[in-house]
Amino acid sequence: MSVTIAPLSESLPQFISQQNPSALAVLVDNHTAKHCYPLVKSLLPKHTLIRIPAGEGHKHLATCETIWGALTRANFDRHGLMLNLGGGVIGDMGGFCAATYKRGIAFAQLPTTLLSQVDASVGGKLGIDFQGLKNHIGVFQLPAAVLIDTAFLGTLPERELRSGFAEVIKHCLIADADEWARLRRYDLEDLDWNRTVAHSVAIKERVVAQDPTEKGLRKILNFGHTLGHAVETHFLDRPKGRLLHGEAIAAGMVMEAYLSFQLGMIEETLLQEIEEYLFAVYGRVTLKNEDTEPILAHTLQDKKNRAGQVRMALIDGPGRCAYDIPVSKTLMRQALDYYRG
Amino acid sequence: MSVTIAPLSESLPQFISQQNPSALAVLVDNHTAKHCYPLVKSLLPKHTLIRIPAGEGHKHLATCETIWGALTRANFDRHGLMLNLGGGVIGDMGGFCAATYKRGIAFAQLPTTLLSQVDASVGGKLGIDFQGLKNHIGVFQLPAAVLIDTAFLGTLPERELRSGFAEVIKHCLIADADEWARLRRYDLEDLDWNRTVAHSVAIKERVVAQDPTEKGLRKILNFGHTLGHAVETHFLDRPKGRLLHGEAIAAGMVMEAYLSFQLGMIEETLLQEIEEYLFAVYGRVTLKNEDTEPILAHTLQDKKNRAGQVRMALIDGPGRCAYDIPVSKTLMRQALDYYRG
Repeated sequence: MSVTIAPLSESLPQFISQQNPSALAVLVDNHTAKHCYPLVKSLLPKHTLIRIPAGEGHKHLATCETIWGALTRANFDRHGLMLNLGGGVIGDMGGFCAATYKRGIAFAQLPTTLLSQVDASVGGKLGIDFQGLKNHIGVFQLPAAVLIDTAFLGTLPERELRSGFAEVIKHCLIADADEWARLRRYDLEDLDWNRTVAHSVAIKERVVAQDPTEKGLRKILNFGHTLGHAVETHFLDRPKGRLLHGEAIAAGMVMEAYLSFQLGMIEETLLQEIEEYLFAVYGRVTLKNEDTEPILAHTLQDKKNRAGQVRMALIDGPGRCAYDIPVSKTLMRQALDYYRG
Repeated sequence: MSVTIAPLSESLPQFISQQNPSALAVLVDNHTAKHCYPLVKSLLPKHTLIRIPAGEGHKHLATCETIWGALTRANFDRHGLMLNLGGGVIGDMGGFCAATYKRGIAFAQLPTTLLSQVDASVGGKLGIDFQGLKNHIGVFQLPAAVLIDTAFLGTLPERELRSGFAEVIKHCLIADADEWARLRRYDLEDLDWNRTVAHSVAIKERVVAQDPTEKGLRKILNFGHTLGHAVETHFLDRPKGRLLHGEAIAAGMVMEAYLSFQLGMIEETLLQEIEEYLFAVYGRVTLKNEDTEPILAHTLQDKKNRAGQVRMALIDGPGRCAYDIPVSKTLMRQALDYYRG
């Protein structure tokens, strides 16, 4: 896999001519069809456009059937290429469909959101939701290329951008104490996105290269995600109170930083830094007492568990992270209470 | 991956204790639930039995949802293990479900038919049918183990055994001229199955090891399968005239041996040997004139094609095979005419 951060007008034509596919498809959703596809269309040879509805609510098998059906109707053979133009849902689901169509055709990720640029597009985790469980069905498969154009970030609503930024923060917290200190001095709108995205991608790539299928080290990328995913899943089917992924992960990072502190892995000052910064950027998600048990129940489906026991990635100092730490239900309950304030 | 040919009473307990899974599931269909599971049950620790309807007609997404749902309800984590006890459908679909559940749990193939023992269980091709196309959706993923017990062959109807035998014949034709000569001297009922299965598995393993994802050499295993699959697909939804896989492949091997001869790759004497032997063992499938075009249309969905052009594996001498040979529609039509006699 190679990650290229450059205008697509430079990177895309070159990649396609190298790949020399027998057929080309572009997967978009309603949003990227409108805001991103027009910028890409003129760069492409003849292709099949596959358009699906936007949103996590469509990241399921029925949409995969639409995608597989479109590839089949266009007589795609194994030498075809699929470009996934969109955010995490498009990349995860499009990648999964490509990786399973005729046992796998090549695909490239063209991530259009900050979240997918710094996280989802790198590392080869593909999948769909199943029975309300996030990414429950999927595979590990690296894309032929990841082509990142930060110009797309200008098309994003501010809330989307802020959501993706949670993964940038996470990468600093687990792997780069200096960047963590630096980051907090800038407002979101003043950041140099080419530099910021490149820094985050480099951390993720380095970790994934050492452990592609998450047997060990790669688990550190899950800091904030055990409780964060559980919070996200809990709010999944509430159209009004819906949380974006990064908003849930920001909450998860506060809770799990608290656990790191409780387990003696970080000083109280670092916990306070994290908490203040994350509350300042994201505010506090309103959690009621009666939300606690359903959220804890969701942690049981976490993919890092073993034999029903929850295992977490927790920071153990600024810019450092440990993984496979067993955490009791009682302690998780305290973390939720602590977060509520 | 390791292939073990031994009584399951020896191989299975040892494998499970080595694997030390956090949970265990056994996938069976109605037939293997009745004829095979009773022989295995007492060898197993606590496990979840997942039972699905038998037959290729159920090798689709809806059945996968049943399997994924059962694993989810049993709270399977990534350290779970699934045993696929059955023929090719159980192995292909169970393997696909395991390889995609939480992005992949370990699975072992316990093939109970001759076809799955000498072919499907070895090599990591997994998948399901989609929109009437065989194995259209799937992945390559090696099982943790293949445990073959030829005692199961005694539970098979004679027609099933004969069907699986087509793959044994294929392995000899593409890779072992001596064994091809030897095979023809024995009746099916006089064969030593431990020896015969071991020989076939060794050929397939050797080929797959050199080219796991079928970029090149592995394609020789598809001899007889381009036209054979097309014939099989053509008869798929006819409950009365249904063909077993090996019966269709036997027909495909006659047709493709004819193509080898027409392209100057084999002598007429070898074509005659193949034809006489295969007609003697399998008879001749009744094909009408109006079957020709639909069968040819199915060859366009073959996974070895490139840009709409059919490419075949064809024998080029006794015990030798070449691949990626382009074959015209006209020539395929002649092969069908030739087969009809």
